[in-house]
Amino acid sequence: MNDAVSITRDLVRCPSVTPADAGALGVLENLLKTAGFDVHRVTFSEPGTADIDNLYARIGTSAPHITFAGHTDVVPPGDEAAWTLGAFSGEVRDGYLYGRGAVDMKGGIACSVAAVLQYLRDHGGKPQGSISFLITGDEEDVSINGTVKLLKWCAERGEKFDHCVLGEPSNVEVLGDMIKIGRRGSQSGTLVVEGVQGHVAYPHRASNPVPDISRLIVALSDEPLDHGSAQFQASNLEFTTVDVGNTASNVIPGQARAKFNIRYNDNHTQESLRQLVDARLERACGNRIRAHIDWQPSNSNVFVTQPGPFTDLAVAAIEEITGRKPELSTSGGTSDARFISSYCPVIEFGLVGQTMHQIDERTPVADLEKLTRIYRGVLERYFR
Amino acid sequence: MNDAVSITRDLVRCPSVTPADAGALGVLENLLKTAGFDVHRVTFSEPGTADIDNLYARIGTSAPHITFAGHTDVVPPGDEAAWTLGAFSGEVRDGYLYGRGAVDMKGGIACSVAAVLQYLRDHGGKPQGSISFLITGDEEDVSINGTVKLLKWCAERGEKFDHCVLGEPSNVEVLGDMIKIGRRGSQSGTLVVEGVQGHVAYPHRASNPVPDISRLIVALSDEPLDHGSAQFQASNLEFTTVDVGNTASNVIPGQARAKFNIRYNDNHTQESLRQLVDARLERACGNRIRAHIDWQPSNSNVFVTQPGPFTDLAVAAIEEITGRKPELSTSGGTSDARFISSYCPVIEFGLVGQTMHQIDERTPVADLEKLTRIYRGVLERYFR
Ligand SMILES: [Zn+2]
Ligand SMILES: [Zn+2]
Repeated sequence: MNDAVSITRDLVRCPSVTPADAGALGVLENLLKTAGFDVHRVTFSEPGTADIDNLYARIGTSAPHITFAGHTDVVPPGDEAAWTLGAFSGEVRDGYLYGRGAVDMKGGIACSVAAVLQYLRDHGGKPQGSISFLITGDEEDVSINGTVKLLKWCAERGEKFDHCVLGEPSNVEVLGDMIKIGRRGSQSGTLVVEGVQGHVAYPHRASNPVPDISRLIVALSDEPLDHGSAQFQASNLEFTTVDVGNTASNVIPGQARAKFNIRYNDNHTQESLRQLVDARLERACGNRIRAHIDWQPSNSNVFVTQPGPFTDLAVAAIEEITGRKPELSTSGGTSDARFISSYCPVIEFGLVGQTMHQIDERTPVADLEKLTRIYRGVLERYFR
Repeated sequence: MNDAVSITRDLVRCPSVTPADAGALGVLENLLKTAGFDVHRVTFSEPGTADIDNLYARIGTSAPHITFAGHTDVVPPGDEAAWTLGAFSGEVRDGYLYGRGAVDMKGGIACSVAAVLQYLRDHGGKPQGSISFLITGDEEDVSINGTVKLLKWCAERGEKFDHCVLGEPSNVEVLGDMIKIGRRGSQSGTLVVEGVQGHVAYPHRASNPVPDISRLIVALSDEPLDHGSAQFQASNLEFTTVDVGNTASNVIPGQARAKFNIRYNDNHTQESLRQLVDARLERACGNRIRAHIDWQPSNSNVFVTQPGPFTDLAVAAIEEITGRKPELSTSGGTSDARFISSYCPVIEFGLVGQTMHQIDERTPVADLEKLTRIYRGVLERYFR
């Protein structure tokens, strides 16, 4: 059976908790090969991490090229005994399909595959361009042997993507309420302030880094990084911890450290953001305070797909099926879209996220059917 | 032999590392009993601490009553093999008497005993008032079963002291350079700031205590507590540590804590100081920040013996023997003088502290002789 409910059930029945594949990619490989796709299974390795299976499948050779991205790995089920139906059962009860990954995001993948198979069936087995699937088994955990490497592998083969739909559960409460068109970047750092250790009874012989780091924390927290942009809320810097670890109540410590995280919008690049904060720190230090920031490596860059024809056709397809005009949002946490955005415009639209990562993760069967029709609508409009 | 060098040597040979007495108080008991003192050995106990021997000895029944205070316990010798002569040898070489406690403060006690015995011998065996010794074996460690309890024991027996000389090594570089007439008080506290935990991507749903505690640290550090007093330098508040201990870089923590220590002068009492800092905190918090201070119990109150006839006669005795006019100082760490000051005016004058608590602690033999003459001079002037 090639309908979304059957495919979802088949995928959910593979207990593919990262890094296990448990047969999940095989389910897709069979369906896509049968439909005429050129299917590649690619395994990536890295010392200290588990080998991970990935899948890239394409049909058609010309532009435009739309790719459906996703991940078949899931987070652990937690207490399996607490699930109403089995954590990997894929059973339907009272109109809901239950199981880990039902919404995040085996259901989304299943809908895209079902929609593409229907579309090909109704259009003589070939698109007026290219359709591909970019599926990884390494999204929920370290994301090292997954989409980042699969995109690079594709680029080296000369694959060019024009647009991408990532089927993550983007909707907040009801199908059709939200498309994600970008995410803020995330950048962490450690503020290190050097003092001179000494005895509290002789403060003139010491230099206390505790008031100094406090001044810097206040200065860096108080000045806004920006006031938002067309698609984004304001960037924000939050100090998450400050630690000295001095247990001697009569000793002025020699160093203090504080960690912070910045969520930044498209007013900045990672580079310009670091420069901005370093410059503010230098100003706040003046000639007196010795401090620096250790920037943590980060691959969570800001990205945004500007509203335009591609988002318009997705909105139209969603409105047609759900009657709702989705919000174009840049809120929330990270996904593989941050990597895909370096190669082509990407939007995220999938099922409703409410039960993701929880006991009794489940999706209305009606949503699987509607999402399939929405993806079908995207394809019709895309190749029109 | 009743000279200061012999008594110092006899005391040093008792390895009285706290809480051990090792015969040290017995040395004094014998000498004082022979000289006609009424001698009491008093043992104090407390659950969780070692029993400690103390000694109180008095001669005379009328006022004025001068008491010589001190401790026979010593800090551990460290690496005994590193000592030039044995750590507990009390040997003299090249004009120096070596051994743990030579300056802190068996030497000081020996000089006071030798001076008192000489004085009594030359004045018919009785003072024109009273002389006593208030000697503990619990000063260097926890100070629980020592001077605090011995003073209380004396008070309950109706003992009244008019003045006290504590023979701690008060001189910095050379005999006669410093009398200590007081010490600043010490008061520690913990500043606790309550926030609301949350995710860094949703700061409006959280309340970050890190910038808030930073503001409070700056406010409390920047405003001086006072500008000093006649006998004291300015009081000072130092934050010694600030700790959150949050390891999650995407989480805004729910609480932050910082510890501080205040060294305060006689512009304050412990009570008024706490009220002042609490009031400043409240003002700095405004209506927004939720914070409080946990004050740590402290018995290190500020005290000062105001310059006057008693300090004048000590200065005169020191000048006569050393040719130096000692500074009347309130600097440095704590001693049992903080307890004695609740009962009578107390000054600290003893040997030179340079080698105290170190390998090869030692005193010039000449200093033992001079200090004995100084104490003798104090007695002559006191009972004149
Ligand atoms: Zn996901
Ligand atoms: Zn001492």
